[in-house]
Formats: sequence, C-alpha cells, structure tokens
Amino acid sequence: MSKTIYDERNIAMMMDLYELTMANGYFLQEQENKRVAFDVFYRKNPDGGGFSVFAGLEQILQYLEGLHFGEEDIEYLRSLKLFDDRFLAYLSDFKFTGDVYAFPEGTVMYPNEPVITVVADLVQAQIVETEILAQINHQSLVATKANRIVRAAAGRAVSDFGARRAHNNDAAIYGARACYIGGVNGTATVSAGQDFGIPVGGTMAHSWVMFYKDELTAFKKFAEVYPDNCILLVDTYDVIKSGVPNAIKVFSEMREKNIKSKNYGIRLDSGDLAYLSREAKKLLNEAGFEDAKIVVSNSLDEFTIHSILNQGGAIDSFGVGERMITAKSDPVFGAVYKLCAVEENGAMKPRIKISENIEKVTNPGLKRVYRAFDKDGHSIADILAKYDEDIEDAEYLIDPEKPWKKIAKEGLKFREIPKQFMKGGVRTIDAESVTDVRNRLREQLKAEVWEEEQRFENPHRHYLDMTPAYYEEKMKLLEEED
Amino acid sequence: MSKTIYDERNIAMMMDLYELTMANGYFLQEQENKRVAFDVFYRKNPDGGGFSVFAGLEQILQYLEGLHFGEEDIEYLRSLKLFDDRFLAYLSDFKFTGDVYAFPEGTVMYPNEPVITVVADLVQAQIVETEILAQINHQSLVATKANRIVRAAAGRAVSDFGARRAHNNDAAIYGARACYIGGVNGTATVSAGQDFGIPVGGTMAHSWVMFYKDELTAFKKFAEVYPDNCILLVDTYDVIKSGVPNAIKVFSEMREKNIKSKNYGIRLDSGDLAYLSREAKKLLNEAGFEDAKIVVSNSLDEFTIHSILNQGGAIDSFGVGERMITAKSDPVFGAVYKLCAVEENGAMKPRIKISENIEKVTNPGLKRVYRAFDKDGHSIADILAKYDEDIEDAEYLIDPEKPWKKIAKEGLKFREIPKQFMKGGVRTIDAESVTDVRNRLREQLKAEVWEEEQRFENPHRHYLDMTPAYYEEKMKLLEEED
Repeated sequence: MSKTIYDERNIAMMMDLYELTMANGYFLQEQENKRVAFDVFYRKNPDGGGFSVFAGLEQILQYLEGLHFGEEDIEYLRSLKLFDDRFLAYLSDFKFTGDVYAFPEGTVMYPNEPVITVVADLVQAQIVETEILAQINHQSLVATKANRIVRAAAGRAVSDFGARRAHNNDAAIYGARACYIGGVNGTATVSAGQDFGIPVGGTMAHSWVMFYKDELTAFKKFAEVYPDNCILLVDTYDVIKSGVPNAIKVFSEMREKNIKSKNYGIRLDSGDLAYLSREAKKLLNEAGFEDAKIVVSNSLDEFTIHSILNQGGAIDSFGVGERMITAKSDPVFGAVYKLCAVEENGAMKPRIKISENIEKVTNPGLKRVYRAFDKDGHSIADILAKYDEDIEDAEYLIDPEKPWKKIAKEGLKFREIPKQFMKGGVRTIDAESVTDVRNRLREQLKAEVWEEEQRFENPHRHYLDMTPAYYEEKMKLLEEED
Repeated sequence: MSKTIYDERNIAMMMDLYELTMANGYFLQEQENKRVAFDVFYRKNPDGGGFSVFAGLEQILQYLEGLHFGEEDIEYLRSLKLFDDRFLAYLSDFKFTGDVYAFPEGTVMYPNEPVITVVADLVQAQIVETEILAQINHQSLVATKANRIVRAAAGRAVSDFGARRAHNNDAAIYGARACYIGGVNGTATVSAGQDFGIPVGGTMAHSWVMFYKDELTAFKKFAEVYPDNCILLVDTYDVIKSGVPNAIKVFSEMREKNIKSKNYGIRLDSGDLAYLSREAKKLLNEAGFEDAKIVVSNSLDEFTIHSILNQGGAIDSFGVGERMITAKSDPVFGAVYKLCAVEENGAMKPRIKISENIEKVTNPGLKRVYRAFDKDGHSIADILAKYDEDIEDAEYLIDPEKPWKKIAKEGLKFREIPKQFMKGGVRTIDAESVTDVRNRLREQLKAEVWEEEQRFENPHRHYLDMTPAYYEEKMKLLEEED
C-alpha cells in the first residue's frame, strides 16, 4: 500500500534491510540481549576544513524515545519471508532501552573520535544505525558548510534560501535547523521557523515583478503592503537602467510621505554581484539612501562570497540557497557506526576493525574523549582515554602518528566532551533550544578554536592523542587480529 | 512549540516565506483570483549529460490534493505580524483548485521546456512553488544520476545502499523511489520498499563479523540463518588471506550438507575492487563455486563502475551508496518555477522574464510541447508551439539558435508530451506504480533516445525547436520588454 506524503511519519522503517536481517540472525542465536557498544565517528572534514560541527542529536534522541513498529510494519516484514515469527513478535513489542553518550550539539568535532556512543542490547544497538547516521551525516554536513559560509561573510548577515533545491522536505527543514546552528541569521523556510523557532525572512520573487504590468508599479504595490520590510528585487529587467532607478523612485515617494522604513533596500539575484552591488550602492547613496540594504543571492557559497567581498562588493546580506542546503562542493558527510565493544563475562571487551584501507582501522573499546586546553583557553588536542581511567592519572600523552614522543601534560586543562543523554531508553538531559546550540558553537569558535584551524586554506590539523594505557590497548588488539 | 520527527507531516508550511508575503500582498490588492500560469523547467542536465529523467510528480499531486493549513499554522503565521487577518482567514479555508499539466513521470526531459505547468488563481499558484520545486529537483536529480549509474553497470545489477548518507529521511525514502525509477534493481531502504513496493535487499555489516570471535564463526552463523541469501562480507580483516578462504569453507560445508543456495557469494566493501574481485573470482572458481555472486560497494558511481569494469572486475552486482543518493558529483538540480501567463480580459497573456544572464530568459505564454520522431522512431527534437495551435498546421520548424533556417517537417511524427493530471484541484489520472514509471523510462531509452544522447562524454545536444508562430510571439515580447 502506497503512503502519501501527508501520512504520519514512519521513521522506524527508515533503515537498511540488513539491520533487520542481522537482528533476526542474532535473535535466532539468542544473542539479542548481549550488551554491546557502537561508536559514531567520521574520518574527514568536508571541503578540506580544519573541523566540523556536530548536529542532529536532538532528532536521534526523539527517534530512540519513540521507536516502535506498528502492525502494518510487522505485516510488511512478514511479507518479505525473511524473518522468523518469533523475531517479528519481539519487534512488535520493541522498545529502545539503551544508553546514549554524545557530544552536545553545536560542539566542534574532529575526525576519528566517537561523537556518539550507543551502549545497548545487541539487536537494539544494531537496528538504530541507519537513522542515527542519516541524521548526523545530514545535519553535521549542513551545519559545517553553513558555518564556513558565515565565516566567509565576515559579519554580514547570511540567510538560508535553500528549500527548493534541498533533497526533499526533511533536507529543507532539518537543513534550515543545521544552517542556523552553523550561524546563519535566519531561514526562508516557514516550517523550520515554526518547528524550531528560527527567525524567518523573505522578500519578493521575480513573479511579483512580472505579474504587474511594469516594474515601477510592482515596486509601488509592494511598498504599499510592506513599508517596513521593503527589499525590492531589481534584476527582472535591467538592474542599473531600470531596477535600481525604479526602487529609488519608490523610496523617494516613501520619504516624501514621511514613511520611515525599518528595513528597505534592494536584492540582486543575477549578473556580476560585486560590480552591480557597487554601482547600485553609488546610485542609492547619490539619492540619499545610504541606509538602504543591499541583499544578494544566486549560487553563493564561501568561495563566491569571499571573492565578491574581495572585489569590494557593497553588500549587507547574503541569501544563500542551493550550495549551502546541499553542501554542494562536498555533499557527503561520511560518519560511520562501528562496533567497539562486546560484553563478555560481565565486562565490555574491546573490538577492532582492521581494513584493507589503513584509515579505516577503528579505535576500539569503550573510551573517554577529552579536549585539552592551554593556559589561554585554546583547544590544542583531543585525547582518547580508556573508559575506566582518569585523564589526570596519565603520565603523558601519545600522538599515535609519532608514538615515540611523550607529550607533556604540564599546564594543560582537560574537559570531557561527551555527556550521557539517555539512560535505559529515557532522556537524561532536556532538549535544548537551537539558539543555545548555536551559541555553543559560536562561543567555542570565539574562545577555544585556533584561527589556524578555522582558515579555509591548509588549516592546522587538530591532534587526536591517546593516553599511554589506551594506546597500548589498541596496539595489543592490532597485533592479535592482524 | 517544537515538533518531534514522529509528528504528522506538515508539508503545507514547507515553503519559502516570500510565497506567503507575496500572497498576502496579492490578496490585499484583490488579485488573489486572477488566473495565472507558471512553468517548471530546468536549464542544464547534471554531469554534462544529454538528458534528464522527470520524477517527483506523484508526490506533488498528493501535496496539491491535501494542501491545507491547520489552526497551529495560522497561529504561527499570525505571530509573525506580517499578515492581514483577512488573509489568514482566507488561508484557513484554503484549497488548491487549479489545473496541472505535466510530463508523465519517467519521461526523458530536456532543458528549457515546461515539464509542469500550473494554471490556477494567483495566490494558489504562488504558494505551491517551493514544494513543487523541492520534489522535482530532488527526485529528478537522483533518478537522472541513478540512470547514469545503471547505464555504466552495463546490465549488471545495481542496488541503492544510500540511506545513511542521504540528506535526511525523505532524501533516503524518495531518493530510493527515484533510484528505482532511474533503473536500479532494488534498495536497502525498508520504508521505500514498504511505501512504494520496491524490491528490498541486503546482506551483513562489518559488525556481524566483529561481533563473533572470529570471521569463520561469523560466516557459519550467517549461513545457518540465511542459506538462501548468503552473501558474506569478506573485507573485515584481509580479503584474500582470510575473507574469501573462510567464505569458501562455509560454501564447501553447505555443499557437503547438500544445501543448495539460491543466492550465495561474497561482498567487497574496501580496497581495489577491480583487483580483489578478479582474485576472489579465481579462488571461488578453483573451489568449484563458479556461480557464487560477487557484490561490490564503497563510494561507487558511474565513473568508478566504468573504470572497474574496464579493468576486468569480476562483478555481478553493485551496491551504490552515497554518490548516487546525494548525486555527489553534481548535487543540485536547478529546476525553476516561472510565471509565463496572466489572464487579461478573459485571455491568458504571455509574460517573459528578461535577465542579466541570457540563459535565464524564459519561454513565455501557455504553450504545447511536442516530441518529434523520425521514421525509425528516434526522437530528434522537442518543439514548443502556441497553446492554441496544432503542430500539424505549422509550415516548418525553427531552431531559435539558427532562426534563419527553416526545418522541414516531412517524415516526422509528433507526440504531445504533457498530459493534464489535475483539473480544478481534482486528479484526472490515477497514480501509477513505480514499476510502470520505471518501464516508461526504460522503453524510451531503448526505442526513442539516440545512443549519442546517452553517452557520458560530449553527448549530442537535443534540439528545442519552435513553431514559427511561437517563435514570433517570443520575439515580439522580447522587443517590447527590452
């Protein structure tokens, strides 16, 4: 039976089939209640950047809390003739009762460290993989991209205009959320405003100008309705010959009538934005409209914004669409979900994945992640430690790429990054507002993350060090398995 | 109030705010019932291809049929203090009552021709823009990409493994639908199977191998549960030294026990897939398992598949993930929604958008789209005609890039491509199965579309011609407006 896009969401079934075939196998071998741990981590920052932004956790917690299978789901699975009836009965009573440790959303993150750890019974931990990865991969991708664009805009406003080019509804809505976490000032996507309290904004489309018989009439009509939010789109016919002069006529009329607008100006959506914005600014200034805003849009990203500003573009605000909402220049965030420990005789024993590709070897075991800060509060490295060790007890630190060097701990302060967000399937930390999440990122970038890690060209690579005890454990496992 | 991802979908509010601010403006100026027409078209095939695949219409029709605003939507909009109360009252009774003409899904399409035309009252036609574009842009993008990958696989099976890297849930689910329309054999995404009847498949993850104490045990356990769908993942430790030999041990045991498997073999998910597949094939053949399947995955797309097959990769089936579901190499499909006609004194008068960028000039007016076929049934051009003219009456055709040439119509057959899918807000054609849509594309590619348009390198560019009457009308409008 085909569902319509208005039906209630059925996120439970948004998973790869192999999660369920493996789960059925584990169940039939009576392994379903074996305690295991899976780590979520990623291997490479998008666009060659120096860090990424962790986002998407809130939707994962909601998913885990609500996860259940309806009758129609069970019947569909039965129809596949792959699953044992006892397993399907088990699924129909399914509830997630595991623990979740994670970075708080809006935290700066680096490759190869666990940003989420799920500790749960085997089948529970297995079947939540796909949705956890889809949320983290999408929202972290877009938040990271948006933050790059916001940094390129160097203090000017940035708005998300991307819904129409997003990869369907969720990509527009959760993408807008991720853009806001990344630092944009607002979104055009109404439901993202409604669902998350993100500021919404928007002006006019070419169709407004085309609907009226001429551009001047179209502008006048708009100014009548929206004197306080009067950004006129000036590129439907000819920006310099007609668009800006007509806008100035309308602003002059408003001035004559003593209408003080809170927000007025023009938007450019095609052509050479650096040149046209400078020319438009001249015309507006000459007419005495120094405070008119100039908004630009049209296939912008951090690279084009940087270039436009370098050429002296006179711009107050960027409307950024397709290249932010799809992270066009690098649209895949490759976070993975890997088994790191299995309970044996009451203890969580580490597991490692060797691989043909050296960068795909995993960091085994339950572990702790610390961030080390120098005396100025700058973060200089992240550190993996064994779960049962205290970082303060480690004599020194090891860079696993140069294991012969002992890194001194003197003068460093350590902060453990992950927190427990769920215990026995129940949330232990309340949902945060997206504004709080956005502020967390902003504070970290301001106070903790080196400028050298934030630049676009050859950024400094953040160290992922280990305590000696953790490093030894990993080496021992590699020797055993290889 | 924050919504959870389990709440009922609220697609009505998935729109850019400016649709509503413009609508409010039109409403206050009593223009809301003025009849208008908007065209959906795109300007460039992704990846430099010779054509694209039209997909996403079914979700648009469902959206238009169900479109309404709930009380909480109206209250949210009221809270923005942008909208007149009379407009909000109008919205709370909103129903889409327009007409929709479109290409059938799965139709091969080309730049600059209208693939959807919405004829409706002004406000209705305006506010549906964002969702229409989001569906078409996402599904056409992924269907077009999937079809490229299927063509590169040259008859071998292709499966969608992309959910975890998709841009959130909808991108996974509707992306799987689009992949299937594009020609893949199935998907791993369970809810896409459930919602659309797409075949689902899947094998095992590295976690299955890592959970058990050793690889051989893991393989044996899997074979016990799934003797008939026994594709073993052989790259957790070492493909040639351990993975394939262990798989062969398990297949040998099955042979000894006289277990005939319907589907057995190995999956490679890392390393040099061309080399490893050839070596694995040798080992399997030597052991007498000539019919064992070799499935490969890991960052595949049309380019890597082409290269692997060129190097003699011994492969039966490709599992394609992130690069198909995100259309990584070109992840934005730039379809737009442009006003093309406005009712004046009872007649639909054409509108045109001039632009700073010549390629952004629109094709004005209500029009018809025909596809011209030669005597062998090959499609040689698409043709724009005036809405009230019959293509048979046109004396000759014009290529607007070489308007001095008269193109003879002799020997050509014409088929009108768009159909009316909705009249007065009511669907006039029933929903099709995705299999029918998939078959439509397959038939067109087999019988109608030149090989020269299907190749990846410098494909032939399909002509978009015009009847003399349509061409003259466009030229007249350009002269008037410029």
